[in-house]
Amino acid sequence: MNFADWMSAVQDRTEAALATFLPPADALPGRLHDAMRYAVLGGGKRVRPLLCHAAGAVFDAPAAELDRAACAVELIHGYSLVHDDLPCMDDDTLRRGKPTVHVEYDEATALLVGDALQSLAFQVLAETPESPSRQRRLSSMIALLAHAAGSRGMAGGQAIDLAAVGRTLTLAELEQMHIHKTGALIRAAVLLGAHCGNADAAALTSLTRYANRIGLLFQVVDDILDAEASTATLGKTAGKDAAQNKPTYVTLLGATRAKALAAELRDDAIKALAPFGNRADHLAGLTRYIVERSF
Amino acid sequence: MNFADWMSAVQDRTEAALATFLPPADALPGRLHDAMRYAVLGGGKRVRPLLCHAAGAVFDAPAAELDRAACAVELIHGYSLVHDDLPCMDDDTLRRGKPTVHVEYDEATALLVGDALQSLAFQVLAETPESPSRQRRLSSMIALLAHAAGSRGMAGGQAIDLAAVGRTLTLAELEQMHIHKTGALIRAAVLLGAHCGNADAAALTSLTRYANRIGLLFQVVDDILDAEASTATLGKTAGKDAAQNKPTYVTLLGATRAKALAAELRDDAIKALAPFGNRADHLAGLTRYIVERSF
Repeated sequence: MNFADWMSAVQDRTEAALATFLPPADALPGRLHDAMRYAVLGGGKRVRPLLCHAAGAVFDAPAAELDRAACAVELIHGYSLVHDDLPCMDDDTLRRGKPTVHVEYDEATALLVGDALQSLAFQVLAETPESPSRQRRLSSMIALLAHAAGSRGMAGGQAIDLAAVGRTLTLAELEQMHIHKTGALIRAAVLLGAHCGNADAAALTSLTRYANRIGLLFQVVDDILDAEASTATLGKTAGKDAAQNKPTYVTLLGATRAKALAAELRDDAIKALAPFGNRADHLAGLTRYIVERSF
Repeated sequence: MNFADWMSAVQDRTEAALATFLPPADALPGRLHDAMRYAVLGGGKRVRPLLCHAAGAVFDAPAAELDRAACAVELIHGYSLVHDDLPCMDDDTLRRGKPTVHVEYDEATALLVGDALQSLAFQVLAETPESPSRQRRLSSMIALLAHAAGSRGMAGGQAIDLAAVGRTLTLAELEQMHIHKTGALIRAAVLLGAHCGNADAAALTSLTRYANRIGLLFQVVDDILDAEASTATLGKTAGKDAAQNKPTYVTLLGATRAKALAAELRDDAIKALAPFGNRADHLAGLTRYIVERSF
């Protein structure tokens, strides 16, 4: 299967799996379930599920287990978007081309949608089919996802971000923020995929190096897009970071050096995949795909 | 050990365990970690940890494992209080005699505190020491907690509550709301304690009956307290439900019949403990303790 076909197959199966894991909109409480489905389904490039499946492919991980890991990460990502868009955070009205959840429903519902999506993520991951090898790894996998989502991961990155608004950050401080805010969950996506294939410690180390590069790469590209693309292309409000006086790779480095950094991170990431040979082709393909969004 | 001593020993060890599981306030991001500790430590009756330890005592569960299960449930409870107090929900300024988190810090920080406490709950539960029997049960235990916290449990109860403001509910509808809003997490506390002791299916069934009664009992008592006690006694704003025109057991039944219902639920709960003989003494003691708060 070529890369484009593989990507679209993973996106389709992720959409189908999410639709199954999310409670039906006619289950009580209907408004909450409807809003959860609105927040998660029918949008997004599913980059984290793609990374999870691509990492699993290196170790021939079972597809059904990868679906659970991929959806768990995507549900955490989805909850974070809903909460980030709230008036007390970024106060945004547009996401993936649609009104944000608190605009379409209301603020209290958006709060509960995020809360319930986070719970669902752990439920989906925990309900992995019972094989002895999976049982042995489940404790690590849940702890990995929880750590990535929590105060030393994604939520911590949000807190660092809050504290940074209006301040001048150094490049090192900006990197620290993104390692938490975006990087932690990207890393979790890759490592959970690898765990589904019972990857050994050496493989996990190589993949951690890969994932750290990809996490930053993803953010550098996001900053370039935010500065250069239109709201219509992005499906979310463009130029928001500059307008809010938030530091970005583009404001710190300029667009040209930001693009050079992206190319460097891409090359480093692909180098970290060397031990896996062509079993890592999808991971390499995703790396290029992430960069090409911006160039 | 008599009941009062046992209760205070469990409260002390829960406080100590929570202080260990929570990230230190000097770990980055400091403000977030400080606020997480503010939200969770030094307050609360620790009813859910008490129920967890009391249920574990029936089956001689290891104390270190009960600490993790008890703290996981308490962290979920703690997050729910922080989010419930937010302006878009109950908009409350006082909790456990102190300013609520969004008043003491700010709204964005309070949102992240709740989000990060939920992640931490699953991390604490997942990092249970690796014994084969615990590994076998961990999947069920994580799924149980996630279900209790999520859209078909506590968060769902909040959504039902939101939809009920200003409406007249029947007693059955009020019960449905509380079975989700308070009952689900109370039940999780009891069942997780039992899982830590490798309780069998029959025991779990009896304990589920017990926990369902206790969950409602807890809410009936809360409604009585809200109607009758002062803000100073409660440590949170009293008379709030009536002021917000929220349905309660007292507004639906009157105080006398609400107290009779509490006594009936107490007796039913204690009957459900019969199979366990005096191994369930602490569970029975807690049942009486919960009721005596109100009488």
